[in-house]
Formats: sequence, C-alpha cells, structure tokens
Amino acid sequence: MFILGGSASNGLDASVARLLNAKFGRVSVTNFPDGEMKVRMPDGYDGGDVVIVQSTYPPQDRNLFELILMADYFREVERSITAVVPYLGYARQDKSFIAGEAVSINTVLNMMAKAGVKNLITVNPHKIDSLKHFDGGVAVVNAVHSLTGLVKTELKKPLVMAPDIGGLELAKKAASEIGCEYTYIEKKRDNSGNVSIVKTHGGDFEGKDVVIFDDIISTGGTIDLAARFAYGEGAKTVSAAAVHLVMAQGAHERMAKAKVTRIFGTNTIPCAGAQVIDISAEIASSVEELLKGLHQGKL
Amino acid sequence: MFILGGSASNGLDASVARLLNAKFGRVSVTNFPDGEMKVRMPDGYDGGDVVIVQSTYPPQDRNLFELILMADYFREVERSITAVVPYLGYARQDKSFIAGEAVSINTVLNMMAKAGVKNLITVNPHKIDSLKHFDGGVAVVNAVHSLTGLVKTELKKPLVMAPDIGGLELAKKAASEIGCEYTYIEKKRDNSGNVSIVKTHGGDFEGKDVVIFDDIISTGGTIDLAARFAYGEGAKTVSAAAVHLVMAQGAHERMAKAKVTRIFGTNTIPCAGAQVIDISAEIASSVEELLKGLHQGKL
Repeated sequence: MFILGGSASNGLDASVARLLNAKFGRVSVTNFPDGEMKVRMPDGYDGGDVVIVQSTYPPQDRNLFELILMADYFREVERSITAVVPYLGYARQDKSFIAGEAVSINTVLNMMAKAGVKNLITVNPHKIDSLKHFDGGVAVVNAVHSLTGLVKTELKKPLVMAPDIGGLELAKKAASEIGCEYTYIEKKRDNSGNVSIVKTHGGDFEGKDVVIFDDIISTGGTIDLAARFAYGEGAKTVSAAAVHLVMAQGAHERMAKAKVTRIFGTNTIPCAGAQVIDISAEIASSVEELLKGLHQGKL
Repeated sequence: MFILGGSASNGLDASVARLLNAKFGRVSVTNFPDGEMKVRMPDGYDGGDVVIVQSTYPPQDRNLFELILMADYFREVERSITAVVPYLGYARQDKSFIAGEAVSINTVLNMMAKAGVKNLITVNPHKIDSLKHFDGGVAVVNAVHSLTGLVKTELKKPLVMAPDIGGLELAKKAASEIGCEYTYIEKKRDNSGNVSIVKTHGGDFEGKDVVIFDDIISTGGTIDLAARFAYGEGAKTVSAAAVHLVMAQGAHERMAKAKVTRIFGTNTIPCAGAQVIDISAEIASSVEELLKGLHQGKL
C-alpha cells in the first residue's frame, strides 16, 4: 500500500500512513502566476495499491482537480486506487432544488470514478444516500463518537441542541453518547426571507452549557440564530460542535458576536480557533478493512 | 442546436448563437459563501445538439468544473454534446518535464470526454498534438489571420518578432500575412536562472514598429525581455500580439514598464487595456462545419 497525500489532506495523509505503517509520499504542487497548478507525484511508489488522501474543502474546485490529477496519473496501475476524501465538498448539492440545477455531487463522484478511483472513503457525508451515485466501493467513517468524546470532557452541564429539525437525529445520537438531554428548534422564514425561531422542543436551558450540533459549520448563520435563542432561554454558555468546520469567511466573527464561546470539531479541515479531535485512527481502520476486504474479494 | 453559454465564455456564446441563428441560453451560477458554486441550466432546451461555450481561463479549475457540470448534466441526451473551449487552460502542461509530473492537459481532456463531450472545438491550442489525447472529434480554429489583420491596420512600419525560437513558425506566418519582415531572438539562462538575449536573427529594428508575436501572454516576462532588447536595437515602438491574453497578475505593469505601448489580441479571454478582435465568426463556422459533418456521419 502506498499513501499518496494531496495538499488538502490537513496532515491526515502522514498520520494515517504512520498508523498503517505504510509507505507515504506527498505530491508537490507548484502554483503558476496565471493560476494553473502543476502536480508532481512523490518518489517511492513501488507498484502496490494507491490510497490517495485529499479533501475537497475550499478552494473546492482546485482541490478536486488536484485529486483528479492524482487519480488519473495512477489510473493505469493494475491494483486498486482508493480515495480518502475526509471532507467531501459539494455533498449538500445532492438534488435539483429547482429544475435545471446541476446535481453537483453526482458529477464530483462521476469524475472520481472515471479518473480511476475504485473505492471511496469519506467522513460523515452530508447525506449518505448521495454516495450511491459513486460507481465503486464506498466506506463511511463516523466521527461523531470522537466528537462527542471531546465535548463530554470539556463541558460540565451539557445540553445538546439541534439547530433545525434536519439535525435532530445527529443531536439525539450525540446526546445519548454524552449522556445528557437534547433539544431542537423549529424555524420559520417570513416573506422577506427573515428566519425566526417559532418553538423549541424539550430541554431545560437554565444554567446549561448548550452545545449546538451539526454536521458542517459553513457560514455560521444557523449557529448564530440558535445561540442567541439559547442565551435568551437561560443558557450559561453556548458552544458549537460539528464534524466538518468549513468556517466560510465571516463565520468566526458571526459566531463570536453571538457569544458562541467554543467551537469543537475534527481535523477533516484545517481550522484555527477551534478545539479539534484527531480522527486519523478511525480513517486508518477504515482503509485497512476496505483493502483487506478487497484482497479477499469480498467487496 | 442549442448554444449553452458558461460564465467564462466572454460573450462568445451569445455572438456565436446569433451568427448561427441558434437557440441560446446561459447558465446561472450562484457562488456560496464557502466557495462552492451552484450551476443552473437555462430554460429553452428542446432536445437538439448541445453546444457548450466555456473557456478555462483563470480561475481555471473553477471554470473547468463549471464546464464539466454542464456537460455531465446533458450527458444522457441522445444527440451530441460539443464543447467550444476558446481558451483551453492547462494546454502548456502537455508532458512530464520531470518524472512524476501529471500531464494535466490529458486529464482535462479525459474529464471532458468522460463527462459526455463528443466533440471539442478550441482556438489555437498551445500545441495541436496535445489534443490527440481527446477521445472524440476535434476542430481547431486558427485566429492568427484575424489577429494579423488587426495588427496590419494599426501599425505603420511593422516588424514581427518571435520572443524565442519556439515562436518562430507563428512569427513567420504572421509576417507573411502582414507583408513584413520577421526576426527572432535566442536566449540563454545562466546558472542563477537569469535569462539574457544572446543573439538576434534577421530584421532591421531601426525606426520600426516592432510587434512581438506569441500564442499566449501569461506573465509578460518573455515580452518584457524582448521589448527592452528591441528598443535597444532602435525600434520606434514595441507592441505585443497574442491570440490568448491571459495577462496574469502584474503582466500589464511589467509590460508598461518595458514600454510595450499596445497589446493586440482576440476575445477568447476578457482583457482590459488591449485591442481585441472578435473571432465569433470563425468559431461559428467551425461549429457549423463540425455539426454538418456529424449529421452526415463524416467525422
């Protein structure tokens, strides 16, 4: 096995290689003044299975193309190419919300498969169902257990909060692992597009360390609204926890303004100003199982 | 025929549609705060051949992914998908200069073919040979004639200059069309990487309107050096002409400093501060011929 790290692997490439005691090399990427990049493979590839580690966090399109360049380079190898994409960008574009919209995640998965990727490993994709469009083997790493472990040691009187009804399942699971209560809020959007909270379900906020759970923090807009509501209900502190800390421009400021005191996450994406838990071990196990299965012809 | 314009078509989509009297629509692109884009197809597609017009100028990776999203959306259509890519990014990465380097243009062409593009039309690719890796029909538009026509009307005493030996063929062709002399320079790179001009071949610079011809202007570094040399040899004015004006950051300033008074180009790429000639008609003819050939089963 050869672990091939991309420039958007946030160090997971090296740590997964270490855990698996596998050969490892990282591509070198040159950026030309006109915006083109040049990708050069590392030395040391010896003909075995190739495991590419590369996320597609921002800049998504560039990181995606780098991943495709790596896979395409090894497309002709006789053994398998596995792509480990800890954060899978475009996963929220999994249907045509309006007629004519491209279902971007399908195109991303198609590009990977056609570039020679036989197996895909990702961490908590936005919707697992969307991966069924990948023409190959799929394994999903669940980082929620690691994340709740971190939250449990850090907060004294936790109350898990889902920022909308779509996040209820995740919040239930997180609360059960932490051993605390959960609550979720219902929102309403008026004709001008303003969102307000209409009601809350369950949970006593008074004096609690409320932690808002989501799979991804992007702009922080959802967290902002929920945090203000939680403080209004008597929360002592409000934190946010998510597997993937995308943290688009302005997210930190927006959340700081809403007095979100701490941010918890994993290292699928580099994120300054957050407490993150390393999920290399979970990824390494997944790679090991997948390749073992492959070589036993089980997949 | 339906002309589907991308956001990086620089208006060639609409003008080609007008010339062909074809149905036309442009995608709408939404940019999310986290950097993802969402592409929505226009209304009005009626089931005919799809001709996508989208260049891959900077930001190359984003514009390339937009092109792939468009093609992939129509991949299932029964009739053909043609991609008109007036400026084809990554075309200069057409071989492994050092072992391990990805041949990026091959991956770009592979992505297009696998996304359903059956025919590719481009304008003066950096090397025509690199297009043989495209698994489909290819047509190349030659914009040099239009460009020389522009230069001819604008310069009084032209002398065409190739900035290096690789550009000699283009310079010869341009000089012959303009009806003037040509010259080319030989460069040397010392151990520290500094480039200097060692000799010039042919051409009397004295009092001439020297015009440096190239296929692409990227950083303007090559033009800078050649312009200083030309002034040293007695040129009255120095201009630059290229089919594709990429003009990476700082190129305008660099060329202005070297007293390059005018820049000539085509509209494959948007470029302020240059005189450009519209090549819609050449592209429209190429589309027409290609599709005629297709429907006669000639390709």
